[in-house]
Amino acid sequence: MRATVLSGGIGGARFLRGVTAVVKPGDVTVIGNVGDDIEVLGLHVSPDLDSILYALAGISDEERGWGRADESWNALEAVSDLGGESWFRLGDRDIGLHLVRTELLRSGMRLSEITGRLAAALGLGCALLPATDDPLRTFVETEAGTFAFQEWFVARGHRDEVDAVHYTGAHNARPAPGVLDAIEAADAIVIAPSNPYVSIGPIVAVEEIRAALEGRRSPCIAVSPLIGGRAVKGPADRMLARLAGGTGPAAVAGCYAGLIDALVIDEADAPAEVPGIRTVVAKTLMVDDHARRRLAHAVLDAAAAVA
Amino acid sequence: MRATVLSGGIGGARFLRGVTAVVKPGDVTVIGNVGDDIEVLGLHVSPDLDSILYALAGISDEERGWGRADESWNALEAVSDLGGESWFRLGDRDIGLHLVRTELLRSGMRLSEITGRLAAALGLGCALLPATDDPLRTFVETEAGTFAFQEWFVARGHRDEVDAVHYTGAHNARPAPGVLDAIEAADAIVIAPSNPYVSIGPIVAVEEIRAALEGRRSPCIAVSPLIGGRAVKGPADRMLARLAGGTGPAAVAGCYAGLIDALVIDEADAPAEVPGIRTVVAKTLMVDDHARRRLAHAVLDAAAAVA
Repeated sequence: MRATVLSGGIGGARFLRGVTAVVKPGDVTVIGNVGDDIEVLGLHVSPDLDSILYALAGISDEERGWGRADESWNALEAVSDLGGESWFRLGDRDIGLHLVRTELLRSGMRLSEITGRLAAALGLGCALLPATDDPLRTFVETEAGTFAFQEWFVARGHRDEVDAVHYTGAHNARPAPGVLDAIEAADAIVIAPSNPYVSIGPIVAVEEIRAALEGRRSPCIAVSPLIGGRAVKGPADRMLARLAGGTGPAAVAGCYAGLIDALVIDEADAPAEVPGIRTVVAKTLMVDDHARRRLAHAVLDAAAAVA
Repeated sequence: MRATVLSGGIGGARFLRGVTAVVKPGDVTVIGNVGDDIEVLGLHVSPDLDSILYALAGISDEERGWGRADESWNALEAVSDLGGESWFRLGDRDIGLHLVRTELLRSGMRLSEITGRLAAALGLGCALLPATDDPLRTFVETEAGTFAFQEWFVARGHRDEVDAVHYTGAHNARPAPGVLDAIEAADAIVIAPSNPYVSIGPIVAVEEIRAALEGRRSPCIAVSPLIGGRAVKGPADRMLARLAGGTGPAAVAGCYAGLIDALVIDEADAPAEVPGIRTVVAKTLMVDDHARRRLAHAVLDAAAAVA
């Protein structure tokens, strides 16, 4: 069973730990969001790709919920002391990765190739591909103005309600090498429990990726990131309420219109009927390895059932 | 008494702690070497300027002899784990400074202005100027080949005997803003106890700096970096033996021909006569604050005596 998973950061990364525990990792390809990538202190940071790298390498900080375990913060403290930009939290070990990535980008290597190198160095068994090697960035429109994603999310603590989301560069972005093949070759395509607007939205904003999903020959199953209409973490529920008019399964499924055959929802959101697709009920809160594996099984079973 | 000091890294930085203890720091201008600057992991590192910054800010690691106190090494460990370039030892706090410097350089700011900012942020009382804002780099010729300074010094552990030293870019390099004024306005010009070839050489290879020193109206006093013909640390003695034919005061003074009026030598090298300049005997080993101040006093007294 070859699985191709579209994923954002933390929630997606946790889910992927489940997927790679129940499917042979070599049969898993992850297509990661780069819409929230940011150039900070001259470093190219890819927060979602890194959350996946760290989670699958088993070196993520589970308590903090992001970044690396056993992290220190001395570089950023020095930056701050010297009057540099320190609003974006970068740990020392994390900076090490960004230095390597940025240096390779400057040497002309593509993000996808670099990501493959990092994944190999960290011992990942699955393939991790950025959705695109081209500059594609998420911007949010709010009453306070239009902000680059991280400015809104981190610097402003995503306090502003979002009226619209834009993906600059999406029109010209080509899928990274391997992305279309992975969609084509998959026995199951899965959309991880990530924010539809700012995690999955930028991926499916790449026209050829969207077209490949629309023309899929294997089932595509999305996992709702909401439990009882609430986000486990982050602004997904507020964004859905405002942009989709609700936080129920139909609102989530509406974000993926034409792209999915089934939506896995939590027990807290059942029963639910969504016209045109199946809904599958599961326990979606990923509190531990067991819960992650159980959810992955439920999703892949749903894919088999749809197929 | 306005003092302008030409300085390399560690030895010079220690000496400067003495100078700024006996002269009002606001009356001291340091002209620092940039010949051993290096671009590593995309970071612009200025080892000699940083040694001075850290020493005068009181945050240098005295035991290790270079870098910052209370340092951690997690970023470089991550770089190494990921297959990145890790031969050049960069601590986390140190990387913080390099990130700030590099980002400002990329924004178009000159190294001299950035160095002034860093010095102010670290609370330095004196002025610190790079010799030049232009790219000037030290290369050494050896039997094993020609190497960029840090490649020879760090990567190869300065094991190769040096047949010649080159300063690429020196011909086109202009003194950084303030450098010529500082030489002109000084009551005493001092060459710190630094390696004549790789610390002071790159500074005086800037033609207008050399001309300003040659045309000086105030005395210029050099402090020999050798004690009993031996370097306290580093390859200065081996370089002098091979390139100047000896490690006595005359060999050191020969490196500064036309540039100095007196040479301060250690008791271990006395008595010594050097044609054309005075020799002044002092205890030059800077074991503690007292020794640093005593040496600074001896040097400034010598300047007053020559004047």
